[in-house]
Amino acid sequence: MSDPFVVVGGDAAGLSAASKCRREDPERAVLVFEKGRWVSYAHCGTPYFVKGEVDSLTDLLSLSPADIEDRGIDLRREHEVVAVDTDAQTVTVRGPDSKFTQSYGDLLVATGGSAVSAPIEGFHLDGAFTMHGLDHAAAVRAFLADPGEFSVGDLGGATDVDRDMAARYGAMEPPETVAVVGGGYVGVEMAEAFSAHDLDVHVFQRPNRLLSPFGEAVGERVADHLREQGVTLHLGEEVAALRGEGQVETVVCGSGTKLAVDAALVGIGIQPNTALIEETPVELGDSGAIATDEFGRTTVENVYAAGDVAEMRHVVTDDPTWDPLGLPANRAGRAIGSTVAGTPEPVGGVAGTAVVKAFELECGRAGILDYERARTAGFDPVSETITAGSRSGYYPGGSETTVTLTADRSSGRLLGGSIVGADRAAIRIDTIATALGSKMTVAELERQDLAYAPPFSPVWDPILVAAKVLGGRL
Amino acid sequence: MSDPFVVVGGDAAGLSAASKCRREDPERAVLVFEKGRWVSYAHCGTPYFVKGEVDSLTDLLSLSPADIEDRGIDLRREHEVVAVDTDAQTVTVRGPDSKFTQSYGDLLVATGGSAVSAPIEGFHLDGAFTMHGLDHAAAVRAFLADPGEFSVGDLGGATDVDRDMAARYGAMEPPETVAVVGGGYVGVEMAEAFSAHDLDVHVFQRPNRLLSPFGEAVGERVADHLREQGVTLHLGEEVAALRGEGQVETVVCGSGTKLAVDAALVGIGIQPNTALIEETPVELGDSGAIATDEFGRTTVENVYAAGDVAEMRHVVTDDPTWDPLGLPANRAGRAIGSTVAGTPEPVGGVAGTAVVKAFELECGRAGILDYERARTAGFDPVSETITAGSRSGYYPGGSETTVTLTADRSSGRLLGGSIVGADRAAIRIDTIATALGSKMTVAELERQDLAYAPPFSPVWDPILVAAKVLGGRL
Repeated sequence: MSDPFVVVGGDAAGLSAASKCRREDPERAVLVFEKGRWVSYAHCGTPYFVKGEVDSLTDLLSLSPADIEDRGIDLRREHEVVAVDTDAQTVTVRGPDSKFTQSYGDLLVATGGSAVSAPIEGFHLDGAFTMHGLDHAAAVRAFLADPGEFSVGDLGGATDVDRDMAARYGAMEPPETVAVVGGGYVGVEMAEAFSAHDLDVHVFQRPNRLLSPFGEAVGERVADHLREQGVTLHLGEEVAALRGEGQVETVVCGSGTKLAVDAALVGIGIQPNTALIEETPVELGDSGAIATDEFGRTTVENVYAAGDVAEMRHVVTDDPTWDPLGLPANRAGRAIGSTVAGTPEPVGGVAGTAVVKAFELECGRAGILDYERARTAGFDPVSETITAGSRSGYYPGGSETTVTLTADRSSGRLLGGSIVGADRAAIRIDTIATALGSKMTVAELERQDLAYAPPFSPVWDPILVAAKVLGGRL
Repeated sequence: MSDPFVVVGGDAAGLSAASKCRREDPERAVLVFEKGRWVSYAHCGTPYFVKGEVDSLTDLLSLSPADIEDRGIDLRREHEVVAVDTDAQTVTVRGPDSKFTQSYGDLLVATGGSAVSAPIEGFHLDGAFTMHGLDHAAAVRAFLADPGEFSVGDLGGATDVDRDMAARYGAMEPPETVAVVGGGYVGVEMAEAFSAHDLDVHVFQRPNRLLSPFGEAVGERVADHLREQGVTLHLGEEVAALRGEGQVETVVCGSGTKLAVDAALVGIGIQPNTALIEETPVELGDSGAIATDEFGRTTVENVYAAGDVAEMRHVVTDDPTWDPLGLPANRAGRAIGSTVAGTPEPVGGVAGTAVVKAFELECGRAGILDYERARTAGFDPVSETITAGSRSGYYPGGSETTVTLTADRSSGRLLGGSIVGADRAAIRIDTIATALGSKMTVAELERQDLAYAPPFSPVWDPILVAAKVLGGRL
């Protein structure tokens, strides 16, 4: 145990683990290798940086490199771990000047995920972006700026940002028409961000509805709302290629649809960065992410995995799942930090809880909504969707709130839920997530003593109304 | 079972039961006796009617008498049930013109509660009100109106309102200074309502803090906020008497403090209306409200009780409790309606969940926060209070949110929680209520997969931060 705790990846999971380990065991050497320059940054804030609600890249950093060093963590940025030898318990690291071998007592693989751009042809063109990482966010914001007024210094994050890329986009004529490829939460958030800059925004989505994991009711309300906000939706249209001379000029769909655009933002999903462990005995799960147990341990001794690269246990199915989101990454990292410091702590399960803002609408989802997935897990799913007010009908400012609940017909167990509305809708998903976390039945959920006061909820909260209606069918 | 289902009291519990029974068993005769004229009205909306956010008394009615008759319910307003003979299974009813006996197959006592005004001397004076019932609300609003512009017709509820009282107050000079006696949720809501009319508002509260059942942290933030809004707080001051010649002119406290005022709104609590069953074998619980079992049955066969007059089971202690609030009344009524119609349905438990708006602040509480009560129930209470942002720090519009959680030291079980903040704070109490409803430990709560997105929550929701900190002490 005198060998250090080595962490690969300097974002949510990695730094949570490193910090917790140092706090619990201040004698333990902790090294964090990060291949890029950015550490501890808020992925989820990038759309709001592009939109302009967040001023500076620096605002998106939870911890500066100096903060991290202050915690006694040996942080090595621009150091890529290129190989792991699990027998020798060493990693091979390529730094800016040299390549070296580092031994480890415990190893955490927290290499995260990468935005998918394949199989879209032409993604190399100028004006094509994903929203993964601060350099892309900086480039998009630079691109949107008036070239006469833009300065790289305005972006913040001065020592770390890819200044060349930002300067190049800052000098270009701002786009007028943008294709958002993918109508998941990144696509919806970026549609809002681009609209705030008065762009003509076109969202292309392969499925027939937006926000697929949020279910039909949410997808339909969000689609209507985006159209009201002037966004053009191309549903059921899969983008096959971006074309242009140097810069994106045309989006080409598999169906033959073409649209002239000046920029394309691709948000069609992420994939786990597992390349590092491909040559090792560390096993992947069925999802393609790294298989882990309740303490975040992989199939190889002293090797842990957490964050977007790892599977976790789903609280509904108790099976492994890959739901790469922020809180589970932080929680798993923190738990692993405690475990390697000598106090084993389970990483907890995930309910797949996600919330997203779509202009004025708030959307949430948790658990299993997809019937096929529910059936695979051995359930017989049944759903109901209701719409009810968010406040007492006589109290001003309420919003029609749509709730879908899905349950197992035979046991009555709640499997999942979604919500959409304009008044405190998203945060209500926490009630459903907590009910899922305790494996409640719909009948039990219906009897929860939820809050009632005219400014905040009607007597029967929309979630209780949904539980009553679904309970009536069980 | 051919004898009718007789309901005493035409508000939340009574009409929920009557409606559900008729829906489940359309052949069953259902009679509802209501001693007043108002039925099915929203108590909790009256402060917002006084404030002016709700236009008309009519807006506060969930169902009109005609709606109720349409459900096949035989509604008799201005019919007071004055006696019950549980052997003969009859009630004695005093109507506008006659007194008669009515037999019942099942009887529901849903007589509600009454606002307490004793032991305050001088409550009979003009300008002294409680906020219980629509006639008082109408009178207060009439009193606040400019006599030159007031018309009883403006109040709405034209056929039911006490027109004489409203007209009399409407003709009086509007008050300039008002004493709000009691700093519970009625007092806090009425302070806001009176402030909206530019009155000089003084809140007198016997304990040293506001909103006692919400705990110290909420009480302190609300006190600071009320002061910022120009409300004068007299904490630790018990009002002993109202004095004046015909109309309230002075508030006199037990300490000797006196204040000249033009009106007094007394909101120091309610008591269950149990007089009707005092001469019967129906037993009261320790709280003084009617004892009931899991189906809302009293100690006498075929006699049920629900709403503000009845005890229910507390989800934390599993003991009887008296927490007179709107949702449990509606839920218990509905369950009893189903039970008497032949499908037994438990009334569910209560967590004592309550939320209140205090100007810009939102407050919530659930479960057992009071140490003495926790100890009486056999727990060893320990608490932590934290303050954390309601959104990611870099996202605009967030608010410092203060969460207190209380747990049992030995088992780690969550016993209760409270929350206060300006951004989506109140509705977050539902997460705590649901955790209480499933008897979670603090460690389990800490591992719930709650929502995270910058506009709605930081990575670690304030509730999770509180669970982490409290968990660290267990």
